[in-house]
This record gives sequence, C-alpha cells and structure tokens, in this order.
Amino acid sequence: MITLLTDFGHQDAYVGVMKGIIASRCPTTTMVDLTHDIPPQDLWAARFQLMSVFPYFPSHTVHLVVVDPGVGTNRRAVAVRLVGGYFVGPDNGVISGVLDQTPVLEAVELTNMAYWYGPNPSATFQGRDVFAPAAAHLANGVPLSSLGTPIPPDSLVRLPVLPLTDTNQGLMGSLQYIDHFGNAVTTIPEDYLAAGPWCMEWKDLSLPGVLTYNDVAPGQPLALVGSHGFLEIAVNQGNAHRQLGLTTGDAVYLVQ
Amino acid sequence: MITLLTDFGHQDAYVGVMKGIIASRCPTTTMVDLTHDIPPQDLWAARFQLMSVFPYFPSHTVHLVVVDPGVGTNRRAVAVRLVGGYFVGPDNGVISGVLDQTPVLEAVELTNMAYWYGPNPSATFQGRDVFAPAAAHLANGVPLSSLGTPIPPDSLVRLPVLPLTDTNQGLMGSLQYIDHFGNAVTTIPEDYLAAGPWCMEWKDLSLPGVLTYNDVAPGQPLALVGSHGFLEIAVNQGNAHRQLGLTTGDAVYLVQ
Amino acid sequence: MITLLTDFGHQDAYVGVMKGIIASRCPTTTMVDLTHDIPPQDLWAARFQLMSVFPYFPSHTVHLVVVDPGVGTNRRAVAVRLVGGYFVGPDNGVISGVLDQTPVLEAVELTNMAYWYGPNPSATFQGRDVFAPAAAHLANGVPLSSLGTPIPPDSLVRLPVLPLTDTNQGLMGSLQYIDHFGNAVTTIPEDYLAAGPWCMEWKDLSLPGVLTYNDVAPGQPLALVGSHGFLEIAVNQGNAHRQLGLTTGDAVYLVQ
Repeated sequence: MITLLTDFGHQDAYVGVMKGIIASRCPTTTMVDLTHDIPPQDLWAARFQLMSVFPYFPSHTVHLVVVDPGVGTNRRAVAVRLVGGYFVGPDNGVISGVLDQTPVLEAVELTNMAYWYGPNPSATFQGRDVFAPAAAHLANGVPLSSLGTPIPPDSLVRLPVLPLTDTNQGLMGSLQYIDHFGNAVTTIPEDYLAAGPWCMEWKDLSLPGVLTYNDVAPGQPLALVGSHGFLEIAVNQGNAHRQLGLTTGDAVYLVQ
Repeated sequence: MITLLTDFGHQDAYVGVMKGIIASRCPTTTMVDLTHDIPPQDLWAARFQLMSVFPYFPSHTVHLVVVDPGVGTNRRAVAVRLVGGYFVGPDNGVISGVLDQTPVLEAVELTNMAYWYGPNPSATFQGRDVFAPAAAHLANGVPLSSLGTPIPPDSLVRLPVLPLTDTNQGLMGSLQYIDHFGNAVTTIPEDYLAAGPWCMEWKDLSLPGVLTYNDVAPGQPLALVGSHGFLEIAVNQGNAHRQLGLTTGDAVYLVQ
Repeated sequence: MITLLTDFGHQDAYVGVMKGIIASRCPTTTMVDLTHDIPPQDLWAARFQLMSVFPYFPSHTVHLVVVDPGVGTNRRAVAVRLVGGYFVGPDNGVISGVLDQTPVLEAVELTNMAYWYGPNPSATFQGRDVFAPAAAHLANGVPLSSLGTPIPPDSLVRLPVLPLTDTNQGLMGSLQYIDHFGNAVTTIPEDYLAAGPWCMEWKDLSLPGVLTYNDVAPGQPLALVGSHGFLEIAVNQGNAHRQLGLTTGDAVYLVQ
C-alpha cells in the first residue's frame, strides 16, 4: 500500500502522473490519497498531516510525500524505514513530526539512478521522476538499501517546534495547525492534563476545558482533547479560526 | 467494497486516518470516495448524495457516512443492512433518503466495544474510533448482529421532507439540492409528468420543460428531468443557482 | 485499470455514481482519479490534462473522460484504442492532445445499446449511462469493436491549436494552460531550445531561461522547461498567474 500526500491540489493531473508511474511499476499496490490540499509549499502542514496519519496504517505502508519547495536545489531526496512504515520524499522536515514519535531503522539518499524514472530527473517534478518510482519499488519489495546511499538517521532535517514552557500563567504551548473545521490544534499533548477542571487561555479569552463540543452552547468557544491527542480550541457548531481570529504560532496557556 | 461520504473536506487527513483504520483491518477491500465536500454538518446534502449513489453500487457494498454534528452527544451510532447495501454512520437522518427507497433488513446500534478502535472512543472523531472499524469488519464478513444491539428499523431518524401538494397553481414541491453546476434538484419525481407540454414555475418565472439543456438558447433557463430522476431547474451552459438566485427550500410548481 | 477525468467537482456524488456503475460491472478493476476539477465544460483544460497523463499509464489502461458541454446534442460518444491506452468519452476534442502524440489503432461510436446502462440514456448524464459502462466493459476484456460502429480515426474532433510561428521577435507560441501553482505552460516544446542562453518574452517582460526555480531570487519571474516538456513561465516561490497577470492564449516569444 502506498499513500500520497502533496500540495498539488486537485485541479492538475500531477498526482495522476505519479499514480501512472506507480501503477506501471507495481500494478498490484493500493494507492490511498491522504490529502493533496496542503497549502503550497507549507512544510508545517505536511509535517502535521503525516504525523497524524502515520500510526493508523499497516507497517508495510509506503508514505509518499511531495511538498517540495526546494526541488532543483541540493536538498536530499530520501527514503526512510521506520518501525511503523516507510517514508519517501524530500529531506526538508516533512517527516520530522513522525520522527518525534517513531524510531528510524534505516535511511538512504535516493542516489541510485537505476530506480529513477529516467537518468535525467526534472528539476521541477521529482515526485514523478524520483519519489514515485522509489515508492513503487519499495512496494514491490526492493530493499531500501538498494535505492541509494545510507545516511545517518539523525541527519534528517527537523522543523523547529517551540518547546513547551512552564510560566506564571500556566504551561505555554502554541497553535501548530488549524483544520478544515476551523479548530486550532495546540502543541500541548493531553498527557499534561491533571484531574480536575482546566481552561485554555488565548489572548484575553479563557476557554473552558470540556469533554465534547456540545458541553457549551452553540456558537460558544471551548477547549477539549482533540482526536489527534493534542489540546484543541474549537467553537460548538462554528469555526474557531474565523470567529476568534486564531493564527498558527499563537501562544496558548494551559491553566489548571 | 467500502464507500466513504463525509464533510471532512480534502485539506486535512481525517479521511486518510479512516482509510488507515480500514486498511489495517481489511487489507483486501476497495475504498471508493463518494464525496468529502458535503458542507460542514449539512445532513440534507449528505442525505441527498447517499440516496443518489446507493442504487448504483453492488449489494455487498458498505456505505460509510460521517457527517456528524451530534458527535459526543447521545445520538446513536448505527449499522444497517438494506436490500441494496450496508450503511454505517450516525443515526441522524443521513440515511433517510435511502430509507424512502429501499427496504431495511436489519439494524443495530454499534455498542460492541470489541469492534471499536479502542475502548474509549474520542468524543470528536467517532469516524475513526467507531464507524471506520465497523465498516471494515462488515467488509470482512462479520455479521451485522455481532456489531451491537438490534434496534427497530422504524426507529431510525428521518429528516422531514415537505410533502408534495396539489394546489391551484399546480403540484407544489420544493428545491431539495443545488449541485456543483448550479442546477437545482426539486422533490418532484419524473413520474408525475403526464404526456404533453409542461413547465416549472418558480417565483415569477415560468421555465419551459424540455428534453436537453440545448433545447433552449445558451444562457436561458429551463426545466428538465435530471439524472437523479427528479425534475430539475438549470440554465443552458450557465449556472441556475447564481443567475436566478435559487435557494434550497424554495417552493416550485409543476404546471401541465 | 480505469482512470477518471471530469469537470464534476468533488461536491456532488456524480463521480461516485460512475464508480458504482464500474464496480458493479468490473469488480476487479482499479479506479484512479486523475482530476475532477476541470473548470466546467473547459475542453482545453481536459485536453491538456489527458495529454499530460496519458504516456505514464500502462497500455491496458482505459481513460474515461467526461467533460461534455454537448451532452444531449448529436455529438458522438466514442471509444478509441491507441498505442498507449484506451479512451472513452465524448467526441468533442478532449482527446485531441493525445491524438497529436499517439497513433490511433481503432475507433468506434458507442452505438451498441447492449453495453449501455439501460436502453434510454439520460440526456444530461451520459457519463453514467454510456461512458462508464463502456469503460467497465473494456476493462473486462470486451473488444472495442463490440461497443459500436467503426468510425475513421481522422474523423475524431480536434481542438485548434495556434501553430508555432517564426517572427522577427523570435519563435511565437501561446500559453495553453495555467496550473494550480500559477505556472503558465506554453505551446513551445523544449526541443526548440538551442544550446546557449535564452529568454521568454511576454508583453513587456523578458523572463530569463533558467534550470530551476531557485536560479532566481524568491518572488522573481523566470522561464524554464516544465515537467510536461513544454517551456513554462513561473515565479520562484510565487504565483506567476496572479503576480504577472498571465492569461491562457497570450502570445509568448522564445528568444535565443
């Protein structure tokens, strides 16, 4: 099984081209679209989506990620074998959320031209020329080590996440992602919740920590444990992002 | 085969998470996306889409619907076996269009925790924790009755559709759905058409009943039998919704 | 394998209906979505997308295209066998980009009602009633000649592409497509590039021909060989369409 996660959108057939490449090399594989609506070149969104999905797939799954603002530069193209699955994509930090959760077993730079689409990969579309073929070959059972040169797992690029910090106001985290419903996901894992009441502070607002959206009246803001396992800010039957003006990176405080 | 119909959009990987859950439990199933662009929490749109698609799929198909504004409340999570397929989703009326067309054979509330993702389903994402696993187990051949407690089929929630009514002006129905092309689908089935000319009245306009879009000049409005089997208002090579200002719920009259 | 390319969007379940039709007739086939976001009734965009994808798929692939402004008129419904794959769709020029690249082996008009969904195809949705069943039957191994009446390959409709012309200013082509990233694809193939420096002229601007986006500063416009094999205008880490005001059909000049 191969999953696909890109910023290619749905208007163009770039994803279709990659699927053609894969189907030509590994006709029996199942291809699953994760999302192709990552905002263009948004490494943070790609990191969050991949991290959110990774634990739910079988461990033989190859996760193909093409969000690649550095295509054509000397950023590395890599494939990684982890405890819960494989990653193929650019070495630009999109895998770094998964790296925080999952041990790496083996990593290579995709230097073996025999497994590319052709000897001269495009400077603009390595999804087609390097990444999709590599994913297909992995799905076919080709060993990771055949695809290129071993690299140290700790050399893989990581995006910098602001550390959680104890402050007078409470545990400070930040908003790391705003989803399709307008819910804002913080960087604070649910493990930090103690027994008893809690609230989340953002700017001048204090949002009550509740169990479900419907614990407050329609249109009212709230905080709760989101399905990702992070504390989250939402509005019951509404859109917290639009109604409150939340922005990724905003500081939030867990008060309990 | 499992179909997926949600309001999750394409920006987030929530659908991908459900696909991972399914693939982990039933690796051989085929997953078909119906649509994930139901307007957020719009039960009427979900009802119409499911009703429109249901008859075309093989009878072993499991239709997984997650449009679930009541998640976390005491609305029931259900699975239903019908003559033409299976339904898994919240008991909030999204299945009610199908119920108007198709006999129910068996229905259960999804109370058997052994078939959930884990013993403590999320209060915000039961698509992952309850519905997707249930769909996968059904596709694996687990009997419906194993998934939970039997419930009377006539206890399933139905959305209220205004009845068709004979009036002095003609048969009165309403607009039940506006599609991507801006065509407005009425609640009047084509069976109500007699031989001879007819027209559809909406507000001050009288729209000629024709056979194809091209029976009127480009830019002109018309009425015709839509592909769903309901009378429909459209504009040839145009967008009836935007050009005429049609809205779901508007009264329409069939005059013949 | 069957690919699907339509202008149906993702909001409605029209694509889902076609997938149900296909799955009912050919349960073992793999269905791959190319794009359903062709702008409504935009034959040029459909032509470009199909042309871009066609060479990458296995030669047994059936490409099902439903962008069909003439549905209900007397435009022909056709199936075509080419060297690299099959085409099923309306005879309105959407296949004409592929025809410029690939020899046709056989073409038929889809007149055999035995392979339709029913004897009375909808005047508005032949994707369901004529095209999807034909694609499924081809995937099942039904010979093309069984689906209808042979037609001469050179009778297939072609969209008119302005010819490349030598001018005092340089080789004149035009913009044939603007993609999701705002990059503008010209009609000039990369084969026209000689050794040495080159630039692309559009209106008052002269855009340097470079190897990769990053060869100019962020925010700066450039020209390069796009992944489709055509010269392309882009902005490094930006959107050329929005920033420069490029429009499909604009004249461009290759100067070298």
